Amino acid sequence: MTQPFPTTLEEIREAGLRLEGVALRTPVIENPEVNEALGGRLLLKAENLQRTGAFKIRGAYHRMVRMTAEERKRGAVSYSSGNHALGLARAAQIVGSSAVIVMPSDVPPAKRDAVRRMGARIVTYERDSEASADVIARIERETGRIEVPPSAHPQVLAGSGTAALELLEQARDLGITPDDVLVPCGGGGLTASTAIVMAEAAPGTRVFAVEPELFDDTCRSLAAGHRIANPVGRRTICDAIMTPIPNDVTFPVNLSLLAGGLIVTDDEVRSAMRFAFDHFKLVAEPGAVVGLAAVLSGRIDIRGRTVATFITGGNVDASRFQALIA
Amino acid sequence: MTQPFPTTLEEIREAGLRLEGVALRTPVIENPEVNEALGGRLLLKAENLQRTGAFKIRGAYHRMVRMTAEERKRGAVSYSSGNHALGLARAAQIVGSSAVIVMPSDVPPAKRDAVRRMGARIVTYERDSEASADVIARIERETGRIEVPPSAHPQVLAGSGTAALELLEQARDLGITPDDVLVPCGGGGLTASTAIVMAEAAPGTRVFAVEPELFDDTCRSLAAGHRIANPVGRRTICDAIMTPIPNDVTFPVNLSLLAGGLIVTDDEVRSAMRFAFDHFKLVAEPGAVVGLAAVLSGRIDIRGRTVATFITGGNVDASRFQALIA
Repeated sequence: MTQPFPTTLEEIREAGLRLEGVALRTPVIENPEVNEALGGRLLLKAENLQRTGAFKIRGAYHRMVRMTAEERKRGAVSYSSGNHALGLARAAQIVGSSAVIVMPSDVPPAKRDAVRRMGARIVTYERDSEASADVIARIERETGRIEVPPSAHPQVLAGSGTAALELLEQARDLGITPDDVLVPCGGGGLTASTAIVMAEAAPGTRVFAVEPELFDDTCRSLAAGHRIANPVGRRTICDAIMTPIPNDVTFPVNLSLLAGGLIVTDDEVRSAMRFAFDHFKLVAEPGAVVGLAAVLSGRIDIRGRTVATFITGGNVDASRFQALIA
Repeated sequence: MTQPFPTTLEEIREAGLRLEGVALRTPVIENPEVNEALGGRLLLKAENLQRTGAFKIRGAYHRMVRMTAEERKRGAVSYSSGNHALGLARAAQIVGSSAVIVMPSDVPPAKRDAVRRMGARIVTYERDSEASADVIARIERETGRIEVPPSAHPQVLAGSGTAALELLEQARDLGITPDDVLVPCGGGGLTASTAIVMAEAAPGTRVFAVEPELFDDTCRSLAAGHRIANPVGRRTICDAIMTPIPNDVTFPVNLSLLAGGLIVTDDEVRSAMRFAFDHFKLVAEPGAVVGLAAVLSGRIDIRGRTVATFITGGNVDASRFQALIA
């Protein structure tokens, strides 16, 4: 790699040490009967079993634990559709700081309540008429709080990369290096940090971003070679990865290192949630199974190969879950 | 231990070697936020993530792999309300044998279909008017098949005991030995083999059988000192552990080694299923969460202590799951 990336394998390894005892080493799950049916080997890194129900606490905690005492006193502010909010709220508590979360007004109630229960304060805004960045900038200015973005920060990336490093180590404990790793892609942080881990530690492993049909900004941006936004006003069931445009921290990494991008439909996501229920006994939220959906819908060839993906989160209302898997 | 038990820690260790590459080493899952709320440490051995969705394949496979070639040619027959059927059907396939499953006519359709898909033949009978033992005896007589019972056989016990041995090893990898292990108890096989493992390898650890309110035959039998049946015609949502009476292989072990029995209501089981969904992102079937229900309903004191339990299976229809956690 000739160009400097926002984080490195070495920094991700160090983040892993700082996360010991805070983030869980989530299991890598496979089902021999499913493998047999697929004709290949499918590994699921079950970050829905992570603390606060998603991988996001890895990045949020790593950013907060690296703050100075004075910065922690000022506290954190961030935008999040849910999982980063939960992770950041908890991370702020663990390091003795505080967090204000800027949330779109349409996020599932369970996520808002859970964030409040973890002691964070919530400021809502309208997804289509206001820019979250403006709300955050105002709070920074008025309160001195420090933004901890969901992905666009080197220390957040180093934290999320620990999930990819663990996946690689756990796969190798099983005697295998994945041929492909499929990463659910919203802001592109887990995607970028996974790409950095694999580029340095498993250069033969291809990394793909996976996105929902109507929020394929990374896929289209990869094709164009520069960042392209999604049209405003679209919706997908994959609320956790419903991002407007790739950010300028993660996108250069993804453009440089990814093997490509894959797109799945909301119906394929529903089927993947049901598949996770039936065959893996896992509760996964829609945005968390786009990688699984890509495998099940044949967007990537798994026959005779090993494909790994993250189940990135499981924070979904029981009633919404029921409606989605019905 | 002065009396001879049907299996031993040594045999369970050997069974573990035979199960390598067949049964999965399922994860032990905990949630620091749940631990904080409970004031103690709760470890879940997630056997719902086991192959065929329940721990039963451990015992079934271990019995079948120990058969002679001639016995395997004759094939297996067994009674099961579902999970043992799935495990035995798959085990028979793996060793190149065959299985006939005797099932009550009222088991959930998903279980019957799944068993058929694994190549086993199903013979149904009426739970309240016929004895499964008579049906099995007839099939043995007419076909030469060999009964592989869900629990009442030393080699089945040695197989199920591998789940307990793994739990103990995994807990010790976390730096802790459980104070108590709560075991969902139907026929009492996992309970007995867990008791044998702990008695030999962790003598300070107490083992409890946990049963649903109306199927508390083991609890009442433990109190009486001899085997007592449940009245015929009762129902519980915990179909996987709806057994009529303790059997004469497992009960002497349980009478000798258990610290006691705990009883939970069906409502507590529903709450525990919902809790597993919300806080552990796990799909568990009703009979699988009676241990978790016992902890959550305060039937055992977890404050300042470590309590482990098995989530024994996750084979539940989506529609039934939805109704139960609603």
